[in-house]
Amino acid sequence: MLKRNQLITSLWLAISTALVVGCNSEQSSTNTTTNTAANTTGNDIKPVTDSSSSGVSSLVKQVEVAHPKLVVTAQDVLAMREGIATQGLFRTAFLQQKAEIDKVISQPIDVPMPKDAGGGYTHERHKKNYAQMYQAGIIYQLTQQQKYADFVRDMLLQYADLYPSLPLHPKRKSANEGRLFWQGLNEAVWLVHTAQAYDFVKLALNEQDQKHIETNALRPVALFLSEQSPHTFNKVHNHGTWATAAVGLTGYVLGEQDWVEKALLDLDKSGKGGFLRQMDELFSPEGYYNEGPYYQRYALMPFVIFAKAIDVNEPNRKIFEYRNGVLLKAIKATVELSYNGLFYPINDAIKSKGIDTIELVNGVAIAYGLTAEAGLLDIAQQQNQILLTGDGFKVAQALEAGKAQAYQFKSIAYGDGKNADEGAFVIMRQNVAGEQAAILKATAQGLGHGHFDKLTWQFYDKGAEVVTDYGAARFLNVESKYGGRYLPENETYAKQTVAHNTLVVDETSHFNMNLDVANANHPELLFFENTPQVKLASAQIATAYDDVVFKRTLALVNFNNNSQSLVFDLLNVKSDSAHQYDLPVHYQGHVINSNFDLGTTTNGLSALGKANGYQHLWKKSHAQPKGSMTQLTWLNDNGRFYTHSSVNNGESVMLTQIGANDPLFNLRNENGFIFRVKGKKQHNFVSVLEPHGEYNPSKEYTLDSYSAVQNIEHSQQGNIEFVVVTLVDNSQIILAINHDIALTEPAQFSYRDKTYQFNSRFQLFERI
Amino acid sequence: MLKRNQLITSLWLAISTALVVGCNSEQSSTNTTTNTAANTTGNDIKPVTDSSSSGVSSLVKQVEVAHPKLVVTAQDVLAMREGIATQGLFRTAFLQQKAEIDKVISQPIDVPMPKDAGGGYTHERHKKNYAQMYQAGIIYQLTQQQKYADFVRDMLLQYADLYPSLPLHPKRKSANEGRLFWQGLNEAVWLVHTAQAYDFVKLALNEQDQKHIETNALRPVALFLSEQSPHTFNKVHNHGTWATAAVGLTGYVLGEQDWVEKALLDLDKSGKGGFLRQMDELFSPEGYYNEGPYYQRYALMPFVIFAKAIDVNEPNRKIFEYRNGVLLKAIKATVELSYNGLFYPINDAIKSKGIDTIELVNGVAIAYGLTAEAGLLDIAQQQNQILLTGDGFKVAQALEAGKAQAYQFKSIAYGDGKNADEGAFVIMRQNVAGEQAAILKATAQGLGHGHFDKLTWQFYDKGAEVVTDYGAARFLNVESKYGGRYLPENETYAKQTVAHNTLVVDETSHFNMNLDVANANHPELLFFENTPQVKLASAQIATAYDDVVFKRTLALVNFNNNSQSLVFDLLNVKSDSAHQYDLPVHYQGHVINSNFDLGTTTNGLSALGKANGYQHLWKKSHAQPKGSMTQLTWLNDNGRFYTHSSVNNGESVMLTQIGANDPLFNLRNENGFIFRVKGKKQHNFVSVLEPHGEYNPSKEYTLDSYSAVQNIEHSQQGNIEFVVVTLVDNSQIILAINHDIALTEPAQFSYRDKTYQFNSRFQLFERI
Repeated sequence: MLKRNQLITSLWLAISTALVVGCNSEQSSTNTTTNTAANTTGNDIKPVTDSSSSGVSSLVKQVEVAHPKLVVTAQDVLAMREGIATQGLFRTAFLQQKAEIDKVISQPIDVPMPKDAGGGYTHERHKKNYAQMYQAGIIYQLTQQQKYADFVRDMLLQYADLYPSLPLHPKRKSANEGRLFWQGLNEAVWLVHTAQAYDFVKLALNEQDQKHIETNALRPVALFLSEQSPHTFNKVHNHGTWATAAVGLTGYVLGEQDWVEKALLDLDKSGKGGFLRQMDELFSPEGYYNEGPYYQRYALMPFVIFAKAIDVNEPNRKIFEYRNGVLLKAIKATVELSYNGLFYPINDAIKSKGIDTIELVNGVAIAYGLTAEAGLLDIAQQQNQILLTGDGFKVAQALEAGKAQAYQFKSIAYGDGKNADEGAFVIMRQNVAGEQAAILKATAQGLGHGHFDKLTWQFYDKGAEVVTDYGAARFLNVESKYGGRYLPENETYAKQTVAHNTLVVDETSHFNMNLDVANANHPELLFFENTPQVKLASAQIATAYDDVVFKRTLALVNFNNNSQSLVFDLLNVKSDSAHQYDLPVHYQGHVINSNFDLGTTTNGLSALGKANGYQHLWKKSHAQPKGSMTQLTWLNDNGRFYTHSSVNNGESVMLTQIGANDPLFNLRNENGFIFRVKGKKQHNFVSVLEPHGEYNPSKEYTLDSYSAVQNIEHSQQGNIEFVVVTLVDNSQIILAINHDIALTEPAQFSYRDKTYQFNSRFQLFERI
Repeated sequence: MLKRNQLITSLWLAISTALVVGCNSEQSSTNTTTNTAANTTGNDIKPVTDSSSSGVSSLVKQVEVAHPKLVVTAQDVLAMREGIATQGLFRTAFLQQKAEIDKVISQPIDVPMPKDAGGGYTHERHKKNYAQMYQAGIIYQLTQQQKYADFVRDMLLQYADLYPSLPLHPKRKSANEGRLFWQGLNEAVWLVHTAQAYDFVKLALNEQDQKHIETNALRPVALFLSEQSPHTFNKVHNHGTWATAAVGLTGYVLGEQDWVEKALLDLDKSGKGGFLRQMDELFSPEGYYNEGPYYQRYALMPFVIFAKAIDVNEPNRKIFEYRNGVLLKAIKATVELSYNGLFYPINDAIKSKGIDTIELVNGVAIAYGLTAEAGLLDIAQQQNQILLTGDGFKVAQALEAGKAQAYQFKSIAYGDGKNADEGAFVIMRQNVAGEQAAILKATAQGLGHGHFDKLTWQFYDKGAEVVTDYGAARFLNVESKYGGRYLPENETYAKQTVAHNTLVVDETSHFNMNLDVANANHPELLFFENTPQVKLASAQIATAYDDVVFKRTLALVNFNNNSQSLVFDLLNVKSDSAHQYDLPVHYQGHVINSNFDLGTTTNGLSALGKANGYQHLWKKSHAQPKGSMTQLTWLNDNGRFYTHSSVNNGESVMLTQIGANDPLFNLRNENGFIFRVKGKKQHNFVSVLEPHGEYNPSKEYTLDSYSAVQNIEHSQQGNIEFVVVTLVDNSQIILAINHDIALTEPAQFSYRDKTYQFNSRFQLFERI
């Protein structure tokens, strides 16, 4: 054993040396020796001088296979070995993973006959197996200790013994069948990891074992996922991306360039399907994925892994420049789609998911490897997880060198759809008066995981959710809670319109919860403006209800020398017939006070309605406020007060709590309030949300627990809509918006006998 | 101005030099020159050699007043000045405080005529004034810039103009009247700060100003608080401590040793009242304060400040050794009474209060200055606040030198009352299977802020509250929420027995909520055992209800090689007549599953009862479980599952939520469940609480979401009580307890035809 180990090590050193000297670097991509198999590992190597390159190049060509050659290259490995020799983040990560895998390899290997569906033993066992093979593989590369390669070999030999005789999985799902797993999707994920694991250890195996493993495990799985599953493989869908990535990676490892071509261009190499088509269609031009950030970070994984391997093996494809660099944009979009480390929880989202998920750790490392952007290191620091890859090592080094700089989050409207013309996801951020984000969700439906929440909004401040979205009703992987699956209440509550902060007409949800209709329609983003003081967006939809059009304009505004901020929310609804209009606001916090009698039900609660989510809301109060302005203040756990002040256009106000008709306590008991008008054709809901003050029980002080808003007025004069907020010191803020899309004429409006003019989309007036 | 400044600086240098060379150190307290006025600042100075000491000592004596001389000494100031000259924690704290006070001194001074009660303008203004004088004073000492001394002088001159003519405060409280403030308490706090501020700047003021300030501000306030308020001054109560501390500090500054004597020994110097008596009676021998930790950290402040000044000025009193070092014990007890940085929220407690409160920052700094215990630095690090005092500087230096070591929290039973014989507060902690704490509150009532919750318990795990206490119903200082005062629901809910995790008989609270009766009675701690594997306590009370005796035995147990833990809760109740017995468990988390049909009310909620707190609980479900064991599992935000498994002795189970009859949404909507039996004389409630598994949605895995408890049995055989927990792998844990207080004979019991014996208070048997 020792002998063999030494031999391998020597071989490695020879290859490695050759690679260091002989391969082309990214910087020297014009070098004529590119695009051969031998140079593909040289992505990160310094350019060589002309005098030495030709001679050594031929040496490289003699080394037929330069493994590893996928996400991690032989060149990376040399650097990483140096990295683990010295104290630091990278060595710590290495030691931790080594300790983990040391435990694993001391246990017997189990490659069971597939039997169970997701969550069951054989399913989880095969998932663990691929993760462990990958981990043992990279630890082999770093330590050069044969025992790790042997572990991968022994497990792969068992797979080679098992796989050829496997029928389709007994619990298979009809749409995407697997053999090792109930879903082909899992089978693809298995191969993505296993191809890399094999790439790590191949040269440590004898020819016989190599042949057995390749012939009876890797090839049949790759063929099963491609030729034998054309529907999935050719599909422009994230399942297709996993399949093409798996087959493409395997193609590189086994030298099957034809498989790579098919993975890139569809089985018939037409380009109708395949990885490139997926890159064309699954993201918007700016990298937004239409199921939303929770699924975006998942979909991202096979894209970045396969793209990295393409870039290593075929740099001339310039895959990371493809479609104006859409993959890098998608990685950064995933970061932008977060607040305080967590993703905006739109659609079916688990709210605790954030930027530290392994998918985005991979994405950020690869993006940093390509761009060396210091802001990405800030994200990597928050992820607090060092990958044992070449890019992971670069990240670790850069972090230790103190190169991290604060990531600069932007205000941005991500157009939805492959052409960015199916509505938009609007993020308005500012860091002046406390780090804040207001989002307006004017996206397309986002397929089966989409919620029926057109033009909903959320607000974040000082690290916390303030105006919130429920996310998905699910306890992910918690077998004791409905098997960890989406709960029934995901359909009956979480997806329903009333679970969101947007208009509900006649207690029915958008598109009547018909997914096909929802997928076929989308809102229109009317405009988006982004100035230091004002971020503003307006969107409209006419298809959510048969005869109702509604438009929402949301603005995040700073004033008073940026010491204060307000979120303006103007929702206009029109119909030819009379309806009941409800506008819910789901908030996080504790009610502090209100400027009206709440009308609380003190001794008996009933559900707010019978269906469409209303059956899950307890009606805790019902009031008909009398004043010109309706105000409610709550205190968030972040120690800030939030006051919602709205123009009283006759709405009644109900305070609600989630939890009715929930026999198994599946729902979180969160709070909201609903503005309601009945029998109306046209209506304007007009409000401002005001963060104010501070509650500091630890230091025993409280500042500004009362709202600074004294009154709020709203007016529409032609195309000009304006809101006047009068503060308690009698100063005024006027936000005026020109809704004429073409902005053909200068805007003008009058307020209290004074005329105001402006030329742009909007103007903010401060009257002190 | 510049001239004067220079003069002062020179004078300072002279004094300082003298002090460095001439004073006695703590280490040389046997030196014969101790106990003179001059040496009192030398508490921390290196011993001097005999050859030089006598000559310089006489020089020191000539410098009549060596200010500052209270908590901060002239010697401290010299070290601190060096400290701010170099980068580090201390300099950062200095710059921050300097920047704050720079803003303040650029504004006009306001010393308004007293008018408002607590929370009103003049009240808050006078509070700010003393804090600002203190801050400007210490910044003057550190910078030696006259402008800071001038600020203190100018403000004090205004107080000197105002105070002599002040009548009693128009909004005074009859029990403890003030002149500047509605309460004499605030007036004492004002003087505690102002005496120190004056001590800082006195030598920078001309004689005329000194005289005016001393004659018309400091002396009259001190006299008002002492001679003119004998009731409060002589009272053995925390208000008395503030008064004696204020007068004593002022005595040291003005050279009125007689005032110090009175502060220490009562106005008549009899020792019947005064600071020493307060030290004798307000804490238990181990430093527990009977109102509980929330008020303990507040009460601590005047004790440690005055004691520090006594130690500086009269080291021979050995004040920190008084009563076996009770003050140091009290500081450390306050730390011990916390979990994850927050105080155990018993009685009227604001739950967000913790070890970072300024009172404990002072306490820990002073304790570190005296003991140099490395564990205290751990606490200081968590407090994250560096004081501008000599001790604060020592803490900063030690932290930077990396001297901090993890504070070792203990399992301890704090006897309540001055003789530790009025029940106990029991803390059971362990760090083996996750950092856990179980507490059993078997204390006396704790006066007016006490809750009616005899023998209640709480449980903490992995940083979070798991079985909880509501604390106080109050939004401290939030004027917009009931003026920031205790809410009406503090009486109607938070203090009531049902708001706690203890026995409620016939839906009435302990002592029928009669405070006098409650103060006159207390539970008895029967035993407390503390071994690495088992922490166990038992307590009993016969006076909470007329004809009911109940005993609770709580144990925190590790087993299975410390990989698992359980909290055993055995509550036995006896009466001669039949009653309804309720046992609530208030928990933090989301219901995951139960082993019985919950019987949830899905479409209409009503309050659980009419009075005694029951009117504030929504009854969300009602079930009569049928199995031998009743189980309910919830998931805490800390990512762990908790299963409560109880012997089914015929109890029905109701799930509850706080919030009924709460028209202004004053209460937090927290969850609980209540076990109930009716028409019973005797009853045993027997349960185990089991932390298990992990929910990690970020990394997408979940471990052990199901309980490992398969069955639980309970038996009493003579004095021996034992509980058998059978796990799902059929292994068993048997906890056997000998309730014979005297432990006269070896204990013996039989279970399933086998006989078990043990000699100690308890024995844990593990049957694998």
